[in-house]
Amino acid sequence: MKRTKVIDALKRTDFGSNITVMGWVRSKRGSKGIFFIALNDGSTIKNIQIVGEDQNFDEAMVKLITTGACIKVNGVLVESPAAGQASEVQAKEIEVLGTCDSTYPMQKKGQSFEYMRQHAHMRLRTNTFGAVMRIRHNMAMAIHTYFHEHGFFYFHTPLITASDCEGAGNMFQVTTKNLYDLKKDEQGKIIYDDDFFGEQTSLTVSGQLEGELGATALGAIYTFGPTFRAENSNTPRHLAEFWMIEPEVAFLDQEELMDLEEDFIKYCVRWALDHCQDDLAFLNQMIDKTLIERLQGVLKEEFVRLTYTEGINILQEAIKNGHKFEFPCQWGDDLASEHERYLVEEHFKKPVIMTDYPAAIKSFYMKQNTPVTVPEGSPEGSVGYRGCVAPGPTMQGTDVLFPSIGEIIGGSVREESLDKLQAEIQHRHMDTTHLEWYIDTRRWGTCPHAGFGLGFERLILFVTGMQNIRDVIPFPRTPKNAAF
Amino acid sequence: MKRTKVIDALKRTDFGSNITVMGWVRSKRGSKGIFFIALNDGSTIKNIQIVGEDQNFDEAMVKLITTGACIKVNGVLVESPAAGQASEVQAKEIEVLGTCDSTYPMQKKGQSFEYMRQHAHMRLRTNTFGAVMRIRHNMAMAIHTYFHEHGFFYFHTPLITASDCEGAGNMFQVTTKNLYDLKKDEQGKIIYDDDFFGEQTSLTVSGQLEGELGATALGAIYTFGPTFRAENSNTPRHLAEFWMIEPEVAFLDQEELMDLEEDFIKYCVRWALDHCQDDLAFLNQMIDKTLIERLQGVLKEEFVRLTYTEGINILQEAIKNGHKFEFPCQWGDDLASEHERYLVEEHFKKPVIMTDYPAAIKSFYMKQNTPVTVPEGSPEGSVGYRGCVAPGPTMQGTDVLFPSIGEIIGGSVREESLDKLQAEIQHRHMDTTHLEWYIDTRRWGTCPHAGFGLGFERLILFVTGMQNIRDVIPFPRTPKNAAF
Repeated sequence: MKRTKVIDALKRTDFGSNITVMGWVRSKRGSKGIFFIALNDGSTIKNIQIVGEDQNFDEAMVKLITTGACIKVNGVLVESPAAGQASEVQAKEIEVLGTCDSTYPMQKKGQSFEYMRQHAHMRLRTNTFGAVMRIRHNMAMAIHTYFHEHGFFYFHTPLITASDCEGAGNMFQVTTKNLYDLKKDEQGKIIYDDDFFGEQTSLTVSGQLEGELGATALGAIYTFGPTFRAENSNTPRHLAEFWMIEPEVAFLDQEELMDLEEDFIKYCVRWALDHCQDDLAFLNQMIDKTLIERLQGVLKEEFVRLTYTEGINILQEAIKNGHKFEFPCQWGDDLASEHERYLVEEHFKKPVIMTDYPAAIKSFYMKQNTPVTVPEGSPEGSVGYRGCVAPGPTMQGTDVLFPSIGEIIGGSVREESLDKLQAEIQHRHMDTTHLEWYIDTRRWGTCPHAGFGLGFERLILFVTGMQNIRDVIPFPRTPKNAAF
Repeated sequence: MKRTKVIDALKRTDFGSNITVMGWVRSKRGSKGIFFIALNDGSTIKNIQIVGEDQNFDEAMVKLITTGACIKVNGVLVESPAAGQASEVQAKEIEVLGTCDSTYPMQKKGQSFEYMRQHAHMRLRTNTFGAVMRIRHNMAMAIHTYFHEHGFFYFHTPLITASDCEGAGNMFQVTTKNLYDLKKDEQGKIIYDDDFFGEQTSLTVSGQLEGELGATALGAIYTFGPTFRAENSNTPRHLAEFWMIEPEVAFLDQEELMDLEEDFIKYCVRWALDHCQDDLAFLNQMIDKTLIERLQGVLKEEFVRLTYTEGINILQEAIKNGHKFEFPCQWGDDLASEHERYLVEEHFKKPVIMTDYPAAIKSFYMKQNTPVTVPEGSPEGSVGYRGCVAPGPTMQGTDVLFPSIGEIIGGSVREESLDKLQAEIQHRHMDTTHLEWYIDTRRWGTCPHAGFGLGFERLILFVTGMQNIRDVIPFPRTPKNAAF
């Protein structure tokens, strides 16, 4: 007989029909000759209850129905007398497909996340990680659906790259060289002509530059793939291998970019609320009691849009009024997490899109704002979003700051002028050997364009209420850990 | 005024309305004081025609409207008198956003694919590569939609792995070690405790083993991500970095696995025919005149299902009847491409799912068929799909063979018995140091399960009619080439 998934069995109302379910035993209890099994097959957080009478089954077989065991049940679907469940299965035949002895590491409830990380291959069978992984799937599906419906094309940028080797300190080298017999030149420098790609290569830290090639040809693209940082950061926010989403759009200006960022992230949060109700209810109960309220909060209001310069003024005002920050926040400083959180959680109490950052703390490819003479007489001011004047050169960044997460999106309009881009590259003393193809986009048929990057796991942290980024990806890659 | 995408402009029928379009000039021609621009913005293979009168525009500006230039046009949408297009734009204002001089590498039509590969960053702006990339996006969307609708969860398996280092010859090593100062032990062996992950790591060649961890917890998962092979293969079929789809399903048997493979691939082909009509029509005209017919052919008939043993018999019969093969095909041999193509293209003339391969040519994790005594008296026979008896031990593989492509899917039921799996691992003298987590799935609550792998670029080759795998991915990674 064809198997019914638990998620479907719980919806069936054809009581009295035969049914076959298979799955893993979450728990078994018995009383007065009857046993009850909570069975789960991963299709939903909910278990289906299996009811059996001891007298109808072989005693030795029933003893094998332990937590973690895999069983097949043929029975009859009946209306459940128990609260909180519509249907259950009266077992006629039970087959133990896979036994599970007491060495099973997910025996007990309430094990620590740290313990479960060490058994990451088995934690997937728990309620919490089942919920997180189903939500993770749904967020990926929301992302693909959003971009597809908005005319973006999924664009696969390469992971192995020779292009951004300048930041080699934070990159993983990729090689097929025999490390026991490294080819070197007369000065002792390693030669790469015998390496697989004939030059030194690394794992990419971003697909943006290649994404711009896609956008300036196909109009609107997005990447969604693994990205790498060889940072020795043992924090709840960092992974060496994580997934990034990087849309890039031709003919988009700063205001439209902010519209896209806000619309996109609200779409994802709405998808979670619409499609992951059972899993969110579980996490709201077990992990974070304010989770659903916080998700709904994001949808309710428009994000605040303000310039970095306005943000600094608010922070300075707070300091004047006695608020203490650990790190400085003069104009020109990179904002620390405490500053972002003050603006989002205390001052505005909603998400903020911050724009027009000082050029010195942002990347070479960002669109430069128009220089103006600022009131103080310095020739280095600039005018940005909604005419806001800054006391120094600024660039059209548009980062989204979220409660409890901080920066969730980093975006910007890109500099489309060949002259300005080249001047900036020169100003920063960058090696253009591996950048000429990028500069070419400004050389032939350049166009205004913009884009952003979203760390997928940051989004999953926000949507699940989980606290550690290692718990929202199946097998985290962190310093000294490449297990599984 | 808000920009209208070309794909939308071509559908509008509100003739007489003002419209703004932006894009890249595919061509410009003029006659008798009127010029015509074919404008494309990547949203569709089709261009929109812009018509302008010389007298209304600055002569110097009009001269800048060259092939590859990026322009913005404000004008009026009018019904087109020209054949093959419903609407065009009468230009009122034209702004050249990005000029394009004669050094632009995509000037001419009919450039060779080899030439375009060397300018892969600009080939995206051509008709052919625009079509291929839009179809590539659509195939990815079809895959995500299929699995989502069928209750599979997208499961992100890690790319950096310490697990399959035994096949190190074909793998890329990932390291942060300083190659100029390699830490070694007393015997001169490199020590990895100072490497990022504290052990030797590589880029994965498959997410299947981790995928099985997902399937035996969540019920049904699929991976879709980059995969790596450091093979020094300079062929039109090999990439060092390619995308793989690997679904894995609990409680699936061999017959259901074949149903899934066939249903899945037909769904993808149907999606292409339904969603990519314009791009397919272009490729059918320019690249392969039998493309659409071949795609429709896949949908028409049920795939043939036969065992390897039956396949060998057919090939032996062909040899008896005078057919010449270059490579041998005795029972036990790995089939060569010529054998697969004979079965698919000449004998059956439709796709074939081949099952029950000799154990010796398949992987350790495949489900072993039941041993039987074969008629000749050897104790080593086995019985497989639909009771077919083989003269040696077989495993429940289920590969899909396609016309013009050969093997497009490699699938199998997985061995769920702990004892049998361990015996096979021992038989093959495999190091289990990095496999214990995998074996654990059979130790605790093991379940029958099955899955398959599909090389994404193979699918794109089939669906686009392109001949070289380097032309169906934006920036191919091949020996001696990591450009862009």
